[in-house]
Amino acid sequence: MAETTVPSPPALGHLRVSLDGRTSIGPGKANLLEAIGETGSIAAAGRRLKMSYKRAWSLVDDLNAAFREPLVASSRGGSAGGGAVLTPAGERVLAAYRAMQAAAERAIAQEAADLRGLLADPTQSDVSK
Amino acid sequence: MAETTVPSPPALGHLRVSLDGRTSIGPGKANLLEAIGETGSIAAAGRRLKMSYKRAWSLVDDLNAAFREPLVASSRGGSAGGGAVLTPAGERVLAAYRAMQAAAERAIAQEAADLRGLLADPTQSDVSK
Repeated sequence: MAETTVPSPPALGHLRVSLDGRTSIGPGKANLLEAIGETGSIAAAGRRLKMSYKRAWSLVDDLNAAFREPLVASSRGGSAGGGAVLTPAGERVLAAYRAMQAAAERAIAQEAADLRGLLADPTQSDVSK
Repeated sequence: MAETTVPSPPALGHLRVSLDGRTSIGPGKANLLEAIGETGSIAAAGRRLKMSYKRAWSLVDDLNAAFREPLVASSRGGSAGGGAVLTPAGERVLAAYRAMQAAAERAIAQEAADLRGLLADPTQSDVSK
């Protein structure tokens, strides 16, 4: 067995959570919510995530329609281009998704480590790409 | 609170596990391995999953190259179109992925149920699409 000299990289590559037949939340929506909270702007959040303005707005509209309370409060347009903030419901949904990512990572860590030991080159763990 | 009259649908929509910077396993590869085990054919497995023949072979080649032992043993061509079986390593990787799906589902179930309660129409749980 190879000695472990560095911490294992995260095993969780992508987690999508189905809430009902129409609504799911994955890294795309969660990262968008997070970036809106950090930038105060749907347009800036979209740029940060290399997502088109139209796509960012579409995801926000979908999320706001799916939940009883909107997750993002925004003012379209205006000379400053409008602003956006996460509502308390938005903060809660984002926190819940991050908690599910962390819980899923813990839940799969041992099996993933076992599988890594079956790789042709188990010392290769370049996660830079 | 609405009464729960039916079991909750699964919360885990999509799980991809990163093994190293080059290798991950998600539902596409896992379902392909499972279908190969069940059909005895890469072509038939691809058809069942509505995946092109080329795509199915490409995924099998990637998996076989990534692990120390091949996951799928196959004979290309021939009058019967070749056959394929999962090796013991293939069975092990598939079982590990299914175990990780189940563990992740358990890990996120409560948070997902809480989020469902915030949906605009929490009684809607059509998972048919």
